[in-house]
Amino acid sequence: MVYIRRSNTRVVTERNLDFKEEFQKKLSIIEDGLKTYLPHEDEKPEIIHQAMRYSVSSGGKRIRPILAMATYEMFDRDVKYILPVACAIEYIHTYSLIHDDLPAMDNDDFRRGKPTSHRVFGEAIAILAGDALLTHAFNVIYESALTYSERMKLYVLAGKEIAEACDSKGLVGGQVIDINSVSIIDTSEKLMDMDIRKTGCLIRASVVAGAIIGGAGSSDILYLNTFGEKLGLAFQVQDDILDYKENEIFPDKPTYTSILGIEGAREYVKKLSKDAIDSLNIFGDKAAFLRNLTMSLIDRKA
Amino acid sequence: MVYIRRSNTRVVTERNLDFKEEFQKKLSIIEDGLKTYLPHEDEKPEIIHQAMRYSVSSGGKRIRPILAMATYEMFDRDVKYILPVACAIEYIHTYSLIHDDLPAMDNDDFRRGKPTSHRVFGEAIAILAGDALLTHAFNVIYESALTYSERMKLYVLAGKEIAEACDSKGLVGGQVIDINSVSIIDTSEKLMDMDIRKTGCLIRASVVAGAIIGGAGSSDILYLNTFGEKLGLAFQVQDDILDYKENEIFPDKPTYTSILGIEGAREYVKKLSKDAIDSLNIFGDKAAFLRNLTMSLIDRKA
Repeated sequence: MVYIRRSNTRVVTERNLDFKEEFQKKLSIIEDGLKTYLPHEDEKPEIIHQAMRYSVSSGGKRIRPILAMATYEMFDRDVKYILPVACAIEYIHTYSLIHDDLPAMDNDDFRRGKPTSHRVFGEAIAILAGDALLTHAFNVIYESALTYSERMKLYVLAGKEIAEACDSKGLVGGQVIDINSVSIIDTSEKLMDMDIRKTGCLIRASVVAGAIIGGAGSSDILYLNTFGEKLGLAFQVQDDILDYKENEIFPDKPTYTSILGIEGAREYVKKLSKDAIDSLNIFGDKAAFLRNLTMSLIDRKA
Repeated sequence: MVYIRRSNTRVVTERNLDFKEEFQKKLSIIEDGLKTYLPHEDEKPEIIHQAMRYSVSSGGKRIRPILAMATYEMFDRDVKYILPVACAIEYIHTYSLIHDDLPAMDNDDFRRGKPTSHRVFGEAIAILAGDALLTHAFNVIYESALTYSERMKLYVLAGKEIAEACDSKGLVGGQVIDINSVSIIDTSEKLMDMDIRKTGCLIRASVVAGAIIGGAGSSDILYLNTFGEKLGLAFQVQDDILDYKENEIFPDKPTYTSILGIEGAREYVKKLSKDAIDSLNIFGDKAAFLRNLTMSLIDRKA
């Protein structure tokens, strides 16, 4: 990830060093939380807990929990309330990757340089590890609602946002479209429809859930909803740009670069990230981290 | 299902006719509810909603939602509060069957005389239909908590019971043990451990969730928890008795009949159902339906 962009003036460099430090601080809290809320590997049946932990600890950028936490911190500083929700979101993201990688889906042997769950534990345990992570995510959110009952309604509202985002019209729906995508996706509108479901919904829900648990008002949530929407899509277009291989005429799947061309895709990601950042204007300095995070995601090289 | 048992005296017959009628009435409300809370088949992406509805409408005894509703009605008569939760539980049960039937698991081509989900829709959509039903179940519970916010805490408590029952130490854990069961299960204790997870947890949670949403007190919930535990196990032992084939020396998987013998299994199911019914004593006539349901489940022929 690149934290210093456009200008090398002292001010920008300092601000970005602050961002980098803050990012690492949040990341470290999240990595600890991800371990805390999962059953131990020696709890029975051991193999399922090993499989759950294997995939959760397989790295990844942790964009979704960081977004949830960063948005939350615009309204409240006590991270104990948001941490379980942020981790639940990452468990859901991990379940979706385990199932996406299965032989019946994308049939991927490696993810982030490590063998995929079904390559290590077999297909049956991989399916069940995904099922367990999805269930556990909601278990953790219910638990938080009972532990911090003074914010119970906020957990229910956030839980609803997350469940909706992952349901048959959201995350699962996006994957349904994806497995048939080569034949049916031929316009950027259809590609956008798939990506909004598959990637956008959960990124948007991460931002909104953070705001809800932090006690944000409804107009603030509306702005942040737009921010999450634009960011989610920008993130996906940027992914396609990073995957772009020059002179490749027939990619395996439709992408923004295959439909809009590489320059078209670059223009589009610029517009989306500008829109995302513009929707943070009303928050002023409070949104500095989210602004920097958006820029770092767009400028990322992997 | 056999509703008239042991005696043919007029009183018992009449009581059981009442039971049969009440059972059908509850069943009909549940069947309607199961359709109501699912997205329509023509909502996009259509194929996932077709697959979800295909499996949910593939029959089944609806034991779990009926248990939830019957237990609820001991405390409150307005079924609108329990119906979404009862249906959510049946969605979860359906997801677990779709995933259990997959080629990587039990590899079953038929269930209840109909082709299994992956035989109709392919493996990828079957996995996703299971994922979507599980997610949708929690979505429906959150929605109820927001719609009937005066009972929000009860929905959160019931949701927690259900999520816990389906997590890696419950339903999913039972399936993990099951797929390795031939080699590792050789005592009735180990078999019981698997069945309590795989079948018992969700049956128990159905009973407890019904009581919670109905506003039962904690000592009532404790008795009903015991009832649900005993009933769940009795149900599974009875399943093994019904599957028992005389002279079969090596069944595919360990069962209560292979471990305890057919007579031993029959004794065990009698003891469990007596314990289940005994734990209803403090509820007197209010528990008549649950008592009859228990007897009908134990006397069932399929």
